[in-house]
Amino acid sequence: MDDIYFMKQALQEAHKAFDRGEVPVGVVVVANKRVIARAHNLTEVLNDVTAHAEMQAITAAADMLGGKYLTDCTLYVTVEPCPMCAGALRWAQLSRLVYGATDPKRGYSSISPFLLHPKTEVTAGVMADDCSDLMQLFFKKLR
Amino acid sequence: MDDIYFMKQALQEAHKAFDRGEVPVGVVVVANKRVIARAHNLTEVLNDVTAHAEMQAITAAADMLGGKYLTDCTLYVTVEPCPMCAGALRWAQLSRLVYGATDPKRGYSSISPFLLHPKTEVTAGVMADDCSDLMQLFFKKLR
Repeated sequence: MDDIYFMKQALQEAHKAFDRGEVPVGVVVVANKRVIARAHNLTEVLNDVTAHAEMQAITAAADMLGGKYLTDCTLYVTVEPCPMCAGALRWAQLSRLVYGATDPKRGYSSISPFLLHPKTEVTAGVMADDCSDLMQLFFKKLR
Repeated sequence: MDDIYFMKQALQEAHKAFDRGEVPVGVVVVANKRVIARAHNLTEVLNDVTAHAEMQAITAAADMLGGKYLTDCTLYVTVEPCPMCAGALRWAQLSRLVYGATDPKRGYSSISPFLLHPKTEVTAGVMADDCSDLMQLFFKKLR
Protein backbone atom coordinates (compact mmCIF):
# COMPACT_ATOMS: atom_id res chain seq x y z
CA MET A 1 0.00 0.00 0.00
CA ASP A 2 2.73 2.48 0.96
CA ASP A 3 4.52 1.72 -2.28
CA ILE A 4 1.48 2.68 -4.34
CA TYR A 5 0.93 5.80 -2.26
CA PHE A 6 4.48 7.03 -2.85
CA MET A 7 4.63 5.93 -6.48
CA LYS A 8 1.55 8.08 -7.09
CA GLN A 9 3.55 11.03 -5.82
CA ALA A 10 6.46 10.14 -8.11
CA LEU A 11 3.92 10.01 -10.95
CA GLN A 12 2.76 13.52 -10.07
CA GLU A 13 6.37 14.62 -10.53
CA ALA A 14 6.52 12.78 -13.87
CA HIS A 15 3.42 14.68 -15.00
CA LYS A 16 5.16 17.96 -14.17
CA ALA A 17 8.03 16.89 -16.45
CA PHE A 18 5.53 15.95 -19.17
CA ASP A 19 3.88 19.38 -18.97
CA ARG A 20 7.29 21.03 -19.47
CA GLY A 21 8.09 18.95 -22.55
CA GLU A 22 10.57 16.74 -20.68
CA VAL A 23 10.80 12.94 -20.84
CA PRO A 24 8.26 12.22 -18.06
CA VAL A 25 10.19 10.67 -15.18
CA GLY A 26 9.47 11.56 -11.57
CA VAL A 27 11.01 10.68 -8.22
CA VAL A 28 10.29 10.93 -4.52
CA VAL A 29 12.72 9.96 -1.76
CA VAL A 30 11.15 8.66 1.45
CA ALA A 31 12.64 8.37 4.93
CA ASN A 32 10.57 7.31 7.96
CA LYS A 33 7.46 7.23 5.76
CA ARG A 34 7.93 10.91 4.93
CA VAL A 35 8.83 12.41 1.54
CA ILE A 36 12.15 14.24 2.01
CA ALA A 37 12.83 15.08 -1.65
CA ARG A 38 10.94 15.19 -4.94
CA ALA A 39 12.17 15.90 -8.45
CA HIS A 40 11.40 15.46 -12.11
CA ASN A 41 13.54 15.23 -15.19
CA LEU A 42 14.83 18.64 -16.33
CA THR A 43 17.46 17.80 -18.95
CA GLU A 44 15.92 20.08 -21.60
CA VAL A 45 15.05 23.02 -19.37
CA LEU A 46 18.49 22.98 -17.74
CA ASN A 47 20.30 21.98 -20.93
CA ASP A 48 22.12 19.33 -18.90
CA VAL A 49 22.22 15.58 -19.49
CA THR A 50 22.95 15.02 -15.80
CA ALA A 51 19.65 16.63 -14.67
CA HIS A 52 17.72 13.34 -14.42
CA ALA A 53 15.07 13.23 -11.70
CA GLU A 54 17.10 10.73 -9.64
CA MET A 55 20.27 12.85 -9.66
CA GLN A 56 18.44 15.94 -8.47
CA ALA A 57 16.60 13.92 -5.82
CA ILE A 58 19.84 12.41 -4.46
CA THR A 59 21.34 15.90 -4.11
CA ALA A 60 18.18 17.29 -2.51
CA ALA A 61 17.74 14.36 -0.10
CA ALA A 62 21.38 14.55 1.04
CA ASP A 63 20.95 18.27 1.59
CA MET A 64 17.80 17.61 3.66
CA LEU A 65 19.49 14.87 5.70
CA GLY A 66 22.75 16.75 6.19
CA GLY A 67 24.71 13.67 5.11
CA LYS A 68 25.50 12.28 1.71
CA TYR A 69 24.31 8.69 2.25
CA LEU A 70 20.74 7.51 1.72
CA THR A 71 21.19 4.38 3.82
CA ASP A 72 17.73 4.63 5.42
CA CYS A 73 15.85 5.85 2.40
CA THR A 74 13.59 4.46 -0.31
CA LEU A 75 13.70 6.11 -3.72
CA TYR A 76 10.57 5.80 -5.84
CA VAL A 77 11.01 6.45 -9.55
CA THR A 78 8.46 6.00 -12.32
CA VAL A 79 10.93 4.40 -14.77
CA GLU A 80 13.88 2.07 -14.23
CA PRO A 81 17.01 4.20 -13.64
CA CYS A 82 19.69 4.49 -16.32
CA PRO A 83 23.29 3.41 -15.59
CA MET A 84 24.31 6.97 -14.60
CA CYS A 85 21.56 7.16 -12.00
CA ALA A 86 22.16 3.60 -10.79
CA GLY A 87 25.83 4.49 -10.34
CA ALA A 88 24.85 7.55 -8.32
CA LEU A 89 22.46 5.47 -6.18
CA ARG A 90 25.34 3.09 -5.54
CA TRP A 91 27.54 5.90 -4.24
CA ALA A 92 24.61 7.05 -2.09
CA GLN A 93 24.26 3.52 -0.65
CA LEU A 94 20.49 3.68 -1.12
CA SER A 95 18.56 1.19 1.06
CA ARG A 96 15.70 0.50 -1.27
CA LEU A 97 14.79 1.29 -4.87
CA VAL A 98 11.20 1.03 -6.11
CA TYR A 99 10.52 1.64 -9.78
CA GLY A 100 7.49 1.50 -12.05
CA ALA A 101 8.10 0.75 -15.73
CA THR A 102 11.10 -1.24 -16.86
CA ASP A 103 13.33 0.28 -19.55
CA PRO A 104 14.74 -2.60 -21.58
CA LYS A 105 16.87 -0.29 -23.78
CA ARG A 106 18.29 2.25 -21.36
CA GLY A 107 17.68 0.78 -17.92
CA TYR A 108 20.67 -0.11 -15.72
CA SER A 109 19.73 -3.80 -15.64
CA SER A 110 20.35 -4.08 -19.38
CA ILE A 111 24.03 -3.41 -18.61
CA SER A 112 24.45 -4.99 -15.16
CA PRO A 113 22.51 -5.36 -11.90
CA PHE A 114 25.85 -4.70 -10.17
CA LEU A 115 25.60 -1.01 -11.00
CA LEU A 116 23.52 -0.66 -7.82
CA HIS A 117 24.94 -1.05 -4.31
CA PRO A 118 24.89 -4.72 -3.22
CA LYS A 119 22.77 -3.76 -0.19
CA THR A 120 20.09 -1.93 -2.20
CA GLU A 121 16.82 -3.88 -2.16
CA VAL A 122 14.88 -3.56 -5.44
CA THR A 123 11.13 -3.69 -6.11
CA ALA A 124 10.13 -3.33 -9.76
CA GLY A 125 6.78 -2.93 -11.51
CA VAL A 126 4.83 -0.78 -9.02
CA MET A 127 2.13 1.01 -11.07
CA ALA A 128 4.11 -0.01 -14.12
CA ASP A 129 1.24 0.54 -16.57
CA ASP A 130 0.56 4.12 -15.50
CA CYS A 131 4.28 4.96 -15.59
CA SER A 132 4.76 3.33 -18.96
CA ASP A 133 1.58 4.85 -20.48
CA LEU A 134 2.83 8.35 -19.67
CA MET A 135 6.17 7.63 -21.37
CA GLN A 136 4.43 6.23 -24.45
CA LEU A 137 2.12 9.25 -24.64
CA PHE A 138 5.16 11.53 -24.54
CA PHE A 139 7.03 9.77 -27.32
CA LYS A 140 3.88 9.50 -29.45
CA LYS A 141 3.45 13.29 -29.18
CA LEU A 142 7.07 13.80 -30.30
CA ARG A 143 6.60 11.89 -33.56
CA MET B 1 51.95 16.18 -26.83
CA ASP B 2 48.53 17.87 -26.57
CA ASP B 3 47.29 15.05 -24.40
CA ILE B 4 50.10 15.57 -21.91
CA TYR B 5 49.57 19.33 -21.95
CA PHE B 6 45.87 18.99 -21.10
CA MET B 7 46.35 16.13 -18.64
CA LYS B 8 48.73 18.40 -16.71
CA GLN B 9 45.87 20.86 -16.40
CA ALA B 10 43.54 18.11 -15.19
CA LEU B 11 46.24 17.22 -12.63
CA GLN B 12 46.28 20.82 -11.41
CA GLU B 13 42.56 20.42 -10.75
CA ALA B 14 43.22 17.13 -8.94
CA HIS B 15 45.73 18.92 -6.70
CA LYS B 16 43.05 21.48 -5.80
CA ALA B 17 40.81 18.61 -4.69
CA PHE B 18 43.69 17.12 -2.68
CA ASP B 19 44.27 20.44 -0.91
CA ARG B 20 40.60 20.51 0.12
CA GLY B 21 40.67 16.98 1.54
CA GLU B 22 38.77 15.51 -1.42
CA VAL B 23 39.66 12.34 -3.33
CA PRO B 24 42.05 13.96 -5.84
CA VAL B 25 40.42 13.70 -9.24
CA GLY B 26 40.56 16.54 -11.76
CA VAL B 27 39.05 17.18 -15.18
CA VAL B 28 39.35 19.56 -18.11
CA VAL B 29 37.08 19.56 -21.15
CA VAL B 30 38.69 20.67 -24.41
CA ALA B 31 37.06 21.86 -27.64
CA ASN B 32 39.09 23.21 -30.58
CA LYS B 33 42.25 22.88 -28.49
CA ARG B 34 40.83 25.22 -25.88
CA VAL B 35 39.81 24.37 -22.31
CA ILE B 36 36.09 25.13 -22.00
CA ALA B 37 35.51 23.67 -18.52
CA ARG B 38 37.55 22.54 -15.54
CA ALA B 39 36.47 20.90 -12.32
CA HIS B 40 37.64 18.80 -9.40
CA ASN B 41 35.93 16.38 -7.11
CA LEU B 42 33.81 18.13 -4.44
CA THR B 43 31.76 15.32 -2.90
CA GLU B 44 32.80 16.16 0.68
CA VAL B 45 32.62 19.95 0.43
CA LEU B 46 29.20 19.81 -1.26
CA ASN B 47 28.03 16.79 0.75
CA ASP B 48 26.86 15.25 -2.51
CA VAL B 49 27.89 11.91 -4.02
CA THR B 50 27.04 13.22 -7.49
CA ALA B 51 29.64 16.03 -7.32
CA HIS B 52 32.39 14.10 -9.10
CA ALA B 53 34.73 16.21 -11.25
CA GLU B 54 33.35 14.74 -14.48
CA MET B 55 29.72 15.51 -13.60
CA GLN B 56 30.47 19.12 -12.81
CA ALA B 57 32.58 19.45 -15.95
CA ILE B 58 29.80 18.05 -18.17
CA THR B 59 27.34 20.58 -16.74
CA ALA B 60 29.84 23.45 -17.09
CA ALA B 61 30.88 22.51 -20.64
CA ALA B 62 27.26 22.24 -21.81
CA ASP B 63 26.57 25.61 -20.26
CA MET B 64 29.58 27.08 -22.08
CA LEU B 65 28.58 25.49 -25.41
CA GLY B 66 24.90 26.34 -25.11
CA GLY B 67 24.01 22.75 -26.01
CA LYS B 68 23.91 19.62 -23.94
CA TYR B 69 26.03 17.37 -26.19
CA LEU B 70 29.82 17.16 -26.07
CA THR B 71 30.12 15.66 -29.54
CA ASP B 72 33.21 17.70 -30.46
CA CYS B 73 34.92 17.60 -27.09
CA THR B 74 37.70 15.69 -25.38
CA LEU B 75 37.41 15.17 -21.63
CA TYR B 76 40.67 14.68 -19.73
CA VAL B 77 40.36 13.09 -16.31
CA THR B 78 43.16 11.99 -13.99
CA VAL B 79 41.47 8.72 -12.99
CA GLU B 80 39.26 6.30 -14.92
CA PRO B 81 35.63 7.42 -14.57
CA CYS B 82 33.21 5.47 -12.37
CA PRO B 83 30.01 3.96 -13.87
CA MET B 84 27.94 7.03 -12.89
CA CYS B 85 30.29 9.36 -14.76
CA ALA B 86 30.64 7.00 -17.73
CA GLY B 87 26.84 6.89 -17.94
CA ALA B 88 26.73 10.69 -17.93
CA LEU B 89 29.42 10.84 -20.63
CA ARG B 90 27.30 8.47 -22.69
CA TRP B 91 24.28 10.78 -22.46
CA ALA B 92 26.58 13.67 -23.43
CA GLN B 93 27.80 11.72 -26.49
CA LEU B 94 31.40 12.68 -25.69
CA SER B 95 33.76 12.40 -28.69
CA ARG B 96 36.90 11.42 -26.85
CA LEU B 97 37.84 10.40 -23.31
CA VAL B 98 41.44 10.55 -22.10
CA TYR B 99 42.23 9.29 -18.63
CA GLY B 100 45.34 8.83 -16.53
CA ALA B 101 45.29 6.11 -13.87
CA THR B 102 43.10 3.06 -14.25
CA ASP B 103 40.76 2.20 -11.36
CA PRO B 104 40.39 -1.57 -11.30
CA LYS B 105 37.90 -1.52 -8.40
CA ARG B 106 35.62 1.39 -9.20
CA GLY B 107 36.31 2.24 -12.84
CA TYR B 108 33.53 1.84 -15.40
CA SER B 109 35.46 -0.78 -17.36
CA SER B 110 35.28 -3.18 -14.40
CA ILE B 111 31.51 -3.29 -15.02
CA SER B 112 31.27 -2.83 -18.80
CA PRO B 113 32.95 -0.84 -21.58
CA PHE B 114 29.43 -0.34 -22.97
CA LEU B 115 28.70 2.24 -20.29
CA LEU B 116 30.31 4.78 -22.61
CA HIS B 117 28.76 5.94 -25.88
CA PRO B 118 29.76 3.61 -28.76
CA LYS B 119 31.27 6.59 -30.62
CA THR B 120 33.48 7.74 -27.72
CA GLU B 121 37.14 7.14 -28.51
CA VAL B 122 39.17 6.20 -25.41
CA THR B 123 42.85 6.81 -24.61
CA ALA B 124 44.02 5.44 -21.25
CA GLY B 125 47.25 5.78 -19.29
CA VAL B 126 48.28 9.38 -20.07
CA MET B 127 50.55 10.47 -17.18
CA ALA B 128 49.18 7.47 -15.31
CA ASP B 129 51.98 7.43 -12.71
CA ASP B 130 51.51 11.06 -11.66
CA CYS B 131 47.73 10.63 -11.45
CA SER B 132 48.03 7.39 -9.50
CA ASP B 133 50.75 8.71 -7.14
CA LEU B 134 48.49 11.57 -6.07
CA MET B 135 45.65 9.13 -5.32
CA GLN B 136 47.95 6.88 -3.31
CA LEU B 137 49.32 9.83 -1.34
CA PHE B 138 45.76 10.85 -0.49
CA PHE B 139 44.70 7.44 0.76
CA LYS B 140 47.98 6.98 2.67
CA LYS B 141 47.28 10.25 4.51
CA LEU B 142 43.77 9.04 5.41
CA ARG B 143 45.03 5.92 7.18
